Amino acid sequence: MTFAELPHEQLSELAASLRTAHDELRARGLKLDLTRGKPSAEQLNLSTPLLDLPGAGDYRAADGSDTRNYGGLRGLPELREIFAPLLGLKPENMIAFGNSSLELMHDFLMHAVLFGVPGGSGPWRDAAFLCPVPGYDRHFAICAKLGIEMIPVPMTGDGPDLAEVARLAVDPRVKGIWCVPKYSNPTGETYSPETVRRLAELPTGAEDFRILWDNAYSVHHLTDEPVEIEDILAAADAAGNPDRPIVFGSTSKITLAGAGVGFLGASSANLDWLVGHLGKRTIGPDKINHLRHARFLGSPQGVLDLMAKHRAVLRPKFDLVEQTLTKQLADAGVASWTTPRGGYFVSLTVLPGCASRVVELAGHAGIALTPAGAPFPHGKDPEDKVLRIAPTFPPVSELADAMSALTLCVKLASVEALLAKI
Amino acid sequence: MTFAELPHEQLSELAASLRTAHDELRARGLKLDLTRGKPSAEQLNLSTPLLDLPGAGDYRAADGSDTRNYGGLRGLPELREIFAPLLGLKPENMIAFGNSSLELMHDFLMHAVLFGVPGGSGPWRDAAFLCPVPGYDRHFAICAKLGIEMIPVPMTGDGPDLAEVARLAVDPRVKGIWCVPKYSNPTGETYSPETVRRLAELPTGAEDFRILWDNAYSVHHLTDEPVEIEDILAAADAAGNPDRPIVFGSTSKITLAGAGVGFLGASSANLDWLVGHLGKRTIGPDKINHLRHARFLGSPQGVLDLMAKHRAVLRPKFDLVEQTLTKQLADAGVASWTTPRGGYFVSLTVLPGCASRVVELAGHAGIALTPAGAPFPHGKDPEDKVLRIAPTFPPVSELADAMSALTLCVKLASVEALLAKI
Repeated sequence: MTFAELPHEQLSELAASLRTAHDELRARGLKLDLTRGKPSAEQLNLSTPLLDLPGAGDYRAADGSDTRNYGGLRGLPELREIFAPLLGLKPENMIAFGNSSLELMHDFLMHAVLFGVPGGSGPWRDAAFLCPVPGYDRHFAICAKLGIEMIPVPMTGDGPDLAEVARLAVDPRVKGIWCVPKYSNPTGETYSPETVRRLAELPTGAEDFRILWDNAYSVHHLTDEPVEIEDILAAADAAGNPDRPIVFGSTSKITLAGAGVGFLGASSANLDWLVGHLGKRTIGPDKINHLRHARFLGSPQGVLDLMAKHRAVLRPKFDLVEQTLTKQLADAGVASWTTPRGGYFVSLTVLPGCASRVVELAGHAGIALTPAGAPFPHGKDPEDKVLRIAPTFPPVSELADAMSALTLCVKLASVEALLAKI
Repeated sequence: MTFAELPHEQLSELAASLRTAHDELRARGLKLDLTRGKPSAEQLNLSTPLLDLPGAGDYRAADGSDTRNYGGLRGLPELREIFAPLLGLKPENMIAFGNSSLELMHDFLMHAVLFGVPGGSGPWRDAAFLCPVPGYDRHFAICAKLGIEMIPVPMTGDGPDLAEVARLAVDPRVKGIWCVPKYSNPTGETYSPETVRRLAELPTGAEDFRILWDNAYSVHHLTDEPVEIEDILAAADAAGNPDRPIVFGSTSKITLAGAGVGFLGASSANLDWLVGHLGKRTIGPDKINHLRHARFLGSPQGVLDLMAKHRAVLRPKFDLVEQTLTKQLADAGVASWTTPRGGYFVSLTVLPGCASRVVELAGHAGIALTPAGAPFPHGKDPEDKVLRIAPTFPPVSELADAMSALTLCVKLASVEALLAKI
């Protein structure tokens, strides 16, 4: 029997017992954190060799240049060669840059707002962006900062609702769309080939429409059957829209989260435009860190081998989340959740109006959750029902405590809501 | 007898012999480069230990945090502690950031243009900046990119012409001034205590006037008697203008040119404002590189000891430049030059109208010089007479060839100009 089907008296009894359990939980004085998609120490240990690479005497790039000195605005060619096939790019149509891809997304949009992009008619003023929801809070924070209006579009399970995207994209104010095409943050879903093709072909009101293609989890598989996506650059090229996609990737969740390398791939027109602007900002990225990564990873296969080790660390955590949710919530009928095949998150959907109450109850018990609403523009979930679970960082034992506590809070918040309706 | 005093016939003979010498020079097929202020391989070798630091197992910051993971937007505290005294800053009023200070200058101005700065009344529109000349071409390129009008102000030998600065600064459109206060690029001059104090106190039309204080050469001494400058932040604070200075520095010419760390110091109001904006762009800088630098340098004294080794490499090069210029040009009366006590450049002033001809003649002989005009806004030297010599990168033997060739070109261009006037 689901909670909603329980007679009032039984629901009240359940509420009382859940409150007692919650009081006991509070008394334990836990201090656990499920907020951010951070790699665990065990994962970071996989990249320990980076800490003494490239090694004394090793500083020459394959082309003979001295990586210790200035220059090389597009980044070390041999590192681009390693990541090009993994991101669906060609080495000559990408840059390897600083320690995050977020900064490349930010700088792309900031320069678009100030100067406009190739094929456009000047600075992006009064612009709007399509934001598939739930999505990544840091994407939305960049738009908020730059005054770009965010228009939410629902995710469907294999990417954004394309009918809605098509309806909205005819407005010339709509300059683009955020996409996390594989193992999306936070739902874990992957864009279908049909979705990729239709985004590439999409008729748009803006002639300078851009797809910001954040391929953050390109090699971050959680199963033995890697999910692949269509090549957005090839699809856009075939559709006569070669300048539409801007592809991003990084090693933040491959090697070291704060000391990795970000990548951007795009058409020559986009790349020349961006590199021209970035060249006024810096003489070049940290090529020693590029060389360090090239030496450590060696080849695309080297990256995949490393990711298999990550999977061995992460899979038990995601299994634990799935098992706890199933055991504690499957019969209650008050929540649904994703079972991602890759990426860093599980998306948990609770009864409408309950998400922020769950976060509050968990907070009282010492469990830090991502604020309810975070995966929505301006942090506002219109139905207050989506929670993002980030299981990667805590050790398994702590994760077990945190998930147990979280499911208790979901049950309590649900019963409270059902009682309030009676 | 100077060239200008020579009778016409002798001048013609001199021109002929110089042309012959130039032809012989061309025939040598040299390929030498005096363009950019890059450290030499010998200097980069001084930081070889960085190539295998911090070393396996060493990734904890002094506060116990794991530098391999996300976070720490203001940069590693222990690295800030090392550089604070060297840059006239306090660790809590500075950030350690990415691999260049140029990007911090760029981002400061870009955010000022888009959003305005603390104490101002909104975005910097139709702004102007005072640009002491000759100055640093990359400073000017940022202003040009952002549409900030550049108003040249002459350098005097101990900083910019303050009467001119005071006259111009009353215009509320004038939002700031570029300063390289110590061993300035390219003249090598250092701002006097009086100059620093007057800039701090300067009455300005703009309430949000900023001094961009690029202390790029704070510890880059070429003599045993280090030159010191007044503390601009303390002076501005005393003058009631605490938010006026923004101080920049970097390790680019201390450790590795492409793989160093940039710093920015300012009032809390400025710092909170900037960090707030940067926090939408990145989760944090590369703290492993900060740790690497902290381990290698150890202390402020460690930095000074390293700089003494740089001086041992650089001093013979600057001496060679001085000796060649004196030997070849002192009696001709066609040029003057600086004898810097630190920094990376010698500024050579030739007869008006001759600088670009010298660059052209040198180019024909295979000697790459910084384009004439580069140290001026938009690359335009109104008198076409200033050349920037960057002696740090080439080995001494190549530098000797290049300087010998350069002085020949100066003589030939001068004689051509004198003959044309007759």
